[in-house]
Amino acid sequence: MSGVEIAISLIGIGTGNPDHVTRAAVTAMNAADLILLPRKGAGKSDLVDLRRTICTALLTGPAKVVEFDLPERDADAPYRAAVDAWHDDIAAVWAAQIAEHLPGGGRVAFLVWGDPSLYDSSLRIADRLRAGGRSIGVSVVPGITSLQALTAAHAIPLNTLAAPVTITTGRRLRAEGWPAGVETLAVMLDGACAFETIAPEGITIWWGAYLGMAQEALVAGPLATVGADIVARRAGLRARHGWIMDVYLLRRTGG
Amino acid sequence: MSGVEIAISLIGIGTGNPDHVTRAAVTAMNAADLILLPRKGAGKSDLVDLRRTICTALLTGPAKVVEFDLPERDADAPYRAAVDAWHDDIAAVWAAQIAEHLPGGGRVAFLVWGDPSLYDSSLRIADRLRAGGRSIGVSVVPGITSLQALTAAHAIPLNTLAAPVTITTGRRLRAEGWPAGVETLAVMLDGACAFETIAPEGITIWWGAYLGMAQEALVAGPLATVGADIVARRAGLRARHGWIMDVYLLRRTGG
Repeated sequence: MSGVEIAISLIGIGTGNPDHVTRAAVTAMNAADLILLPRKGAGKSDLVDLRRTICTALLTGPAKVVEFDLPERDADAPYRAAVDAWHDDIAAVWAAQIAEHLPGGGRVAFLVWGDPSLYDSSLRIADRLRAGGRSIGVSVVPGITSLQALTAAHAIPLNTLAAPVTITTGRRLRAEGWPAGVETLAVMLDGACAFETIAPEGITIWWGAYLGMAQEALVAGPLATVGADIVARRAGLRARHGWIMDVYLLRRTGG
Repeated sequence: MSGVEIAISLIGIGTGNPDHVTRAAVTAMNAADLILLPRKGAGKSDLVDLRRTICTALLTGPAKVVEFDLPERDADAPYRAAVDAWHDDIAAVWAAQIAEHLPGGGRVAFLVWGDPSLYDSSLRIADRLRAGGRSIGVSVVPGITSLQALTAAHAIPLNTLAAPVTITTGRRLRAEGWPAGVETLAVMLDGACAFETIAPEGITIWWGAYLGMAQEALVAGPLATVGADIVARRAGLRARHGWIMDVYLLRRTGG
């Protein structure tokens, strides 16, 4: 692609409901020459279907929509090294797709689940493309995160009055326990109910899965009371749909 | 209002750019019978102007748009008590406006800067209305926060790879210093550059004001190098526009 100008647009689309999409996102989608949709394997076919649905509903311009197979992450390698190698692989696939479909340069857009700033790899992958000295611009359109969809669905504030909030991952909560001094803890990227590993007394949980979608499921209550229900419900939903995306908020509410 | 059914819709509208608004927000605005716009005093007239602009641009239904004067917070009382009393006052004004303009009940919407979940009082005020035993439903439509507009404008991720993020207020940073064990710290509601009170070595700042608006201003760099520039620039912008809303991200990047 040397000598060719590429503008990459990373567009946050919310959590699967086309109504989460902002006007800026619709404009950016329609300004693109090419929209690349990753296929993540059979189990998550609903997700590429949802991106397709959003394209069908919102595209009015001439953007070419191309699906590509996302490389898989090595599940056996150490986490950090595996993620770095995986991002390298994805960057190579992006570069190949862009070279094939935009040989003369142009605007390529990616539809990012949630918001490109929060636990998403797209900005790091775009940086890898730029590192090759290519003429590549990157712009970001923010989108509704699953955490916002969660608090909206439960109609609760993320923070207590003027107090801090910590956002972390299931992996961290499991490895390090409840962070010292924290009252409100939002947990993302948790594939295995890390809330089971902490002492539940005095903690309230607000949990949600498939937020904004038809399958949306919500549970809230004292962690000691509803934690086991969430584990069982999550397993049942995952078995039924073949995949699950969920997020939860934990708060020390005492009592 | 006893015996009257009221549905309150708290609609996140992003940070002042009508393009931040989601399709769900447009739908909720147009489903309302009444939209109440707070006036915050002469200095912040741009803010009610922006809400008016959003209504003009996006309303296609019969919603009645009514402006009301927001009570002022007692700046001399202790912070927590002053905020609680202020929320009581606002709830009383909401109730009076709803009783006047929706005597037979109906749907009232409030356009909330950013997202109703994050450092916003609307959910707490709505709870006060419900506490009177009235039949009041509350629904929330998420919106783009200033923090998302900040990271999008700088095209940076909020978190480093799989790492936690803490969101706090200027007041907390000033009172308590840098929280132990934290790498990434987003600071909101900071009226007085609390970043000046911490040791700047090894910290990078990404700052933004008027995010998404025509006046948008961005600065990024090592805190030790650009901190004083931000203080000066912020003072100049505030003097010129009569008000300022800004937010920043701090990260321990070492070096």
